[in-house]
Amino acid sequence: MAADGVPLTEARSDDGMARLAPEGFEAALLRLVGPWLSGPEPVPVVICGMAGARQGWREAPYRPVPCPPLGPEMLTFGANDPRLAIAIVPGLSQARPADVMRGEETQIAGLLAAAPGFDGIACLPGTHTKWAHLSAGEVVGFQTCMTGELFALLSGQSVLRHSVGTTGWDREAFAEAVADAMSTPQKLAARLFGLRAEALLSGLAPDRARARLSGLLIGLDLAASRPYWLGQEIVLIGEGTLAGRYAEALVAQGAEPRQADATEVTLAGLRAARAKLAERGWP
Amino acid sequence: MAADGVPLTEARSDDGMARLAPEGFEAALLRLVGPWLSGPEPVPVVICGMAGARQGWREAPYRPVPCPPLGPEMLTFGANDPRLAIAIVPGLSQARPADVMRGEETQIAGLLAAAPGFDGIACLPGTHTKWAHLSAGEVVGFQTCMTGELFALLSGQSVLRHSVGTTGWDREAFAEAVADAMSTPQKLAARLFGLRAEALLSGLAPDRARARLSGLLIGLDLAASRPYWLGQEIVLIGEGTLAGRYAEALVAQGAEPRQADATEVTLAGLRAARAKLAERGWP
Repeated sequence: MAADGVPLTEARSDDGMARLAPEGFEAALLRLVGPWLSGPEPVPVVICGMAGARQGWREAPYRPVPCPPLGPEMLTFGANDPRLAIAIVPGLSQARPADVMRGEETQIAGLLAAAPGFDGIACLPGTHTKWAHLSAGEVVGFQTCMTGELFALLSGQSVLRHSVGTTGWDREAFAEAVADAMSTPQKLAARLFGLRAEALLSGLAPDRARARLSGLLIGLDLAASRPYWLGQEIVLIGEGTLAGRYAEALVAQGAEPRQADATEVTLAGLRAARAKLAERGWP
Repeated sequence: MAADGVPLTEARSDDGMARLAPEGFEAALLRLVGPWLSGPEPVPVVICGMAGARQGWREAPYRPVPCPPLGPEMLTFGANDPRLAIAIVPGLSQARPADVMRGEETQIAGLLAAAPGFDGIACLPGTHTKWAHLSAGEVVGFQTCMTGELFALLSGQSVLRHSVGTTGWDREAFAEAVADAMSTPQKLAARLFGLRAEALLSGLAPDRARARLSGLLIGLDLAASRPYWLGQEIVLIGEGTLAGRYAEALVAQGAEPRQADATEVTLAGLRAARAKLAERGWP
């Protein structure tokens, strides 16, 4: 990014905490940004997400809610390569019920940078969907549902992998399954095997099965998160189809969620973190 | 088995549908029983379970409930090796809600052979736990919950694998989690991630986490299956610890389940299948 926060260029890879040992993060970063580095001043690198986890690059201790998504506590250190000055944004923790997030706090900061007075719910669908209650510039409380991970495990590795397609959709099947899971969440474990049985007995098509599995899990998520979203202003922060699915499910429940682009709010949050660090004279 | 059904010797392997192509079943069987075969008559081999599935040795079409666990329909064929005469017991299917079982019908037949007038519920805990309503010698209806498979996936492959031990137990933690899941089943997706968060934030021990995960999933199962077991006579058919966990959970709910040994009822069911086949002159 330029000094005013305008993106100049970008690079991506699949390297992350799942793949890298702690000592491998710096090399992974240099593979991406090395060509952009010139002397003599070290380039500030602002990082959010699992790089700050215990099994990440370096652990940035959680900040406990309720608190603003960004605070004075930032983890800063010099890398082995003198051209890099590293800052990692800490995640947030909650004592009761116990919960944690890393990376979503930066996206929330980006959301609030554009809408400072926002009082309501941020929903960040994903492997571990987050629901956060925001008020007066703070994250008041939040809840995590393992929805995306459950979908990946069930569709990819369970007995359902024979019956659930890897692509395809059925809007009606999704909506019915959401409603089903929300009205009888206790039936989930039985409904899941039902997808397999229907595929065997009545030829349930893989795209319908996929849509139903998604609907059951998103419906279960909404059932668990109802205290968060019911009657609240909701902003969905996500990319592509998953956020759209949550939007459909919420709309069917009478909510009117807005959507924010995940990339934009992440960059806005990183810019806000950069500004906070600059205030204290970093790097 | 001798002609009167008394077991003479046994052999085991891990070969099964997950590992064998259809053409591999006969060789897998011969690896185990080959040493026992002598001429000149072919030895009757009575088989139950996934060998009769679509991806098994040969598909034995489901028999639809309500029906007795064993019926006139048996799949019989000659193997390539002339010393083997094969019979496969068909599984059962249910139209609404769609459901299937393979192997459990033979265990149920074994249960009813010992208790022909049994009117109540058979619960067969496992990877895909089955609850079956038995009356007048028939399987009236049944329901499958993917409880064991969910436990394996979550404890072994999800983010929870870092926090949930592979061994260890905590009786109190299990009981609390069962009660929690039964009272608020809609919170499951949030409670699951809570195990991870508590491990990170308050040092939840792996054996307690394991017991809680098991309790959450068995509690969800009981919540889904309440229409089956509430107020009914219950027999748990299972081996070892898993059936004991279901027994604990049911007892806490005021039920008084009996337990039957899985190996005994399986053998009794296979004996009953053998007798049925002999009635029609097989092999």
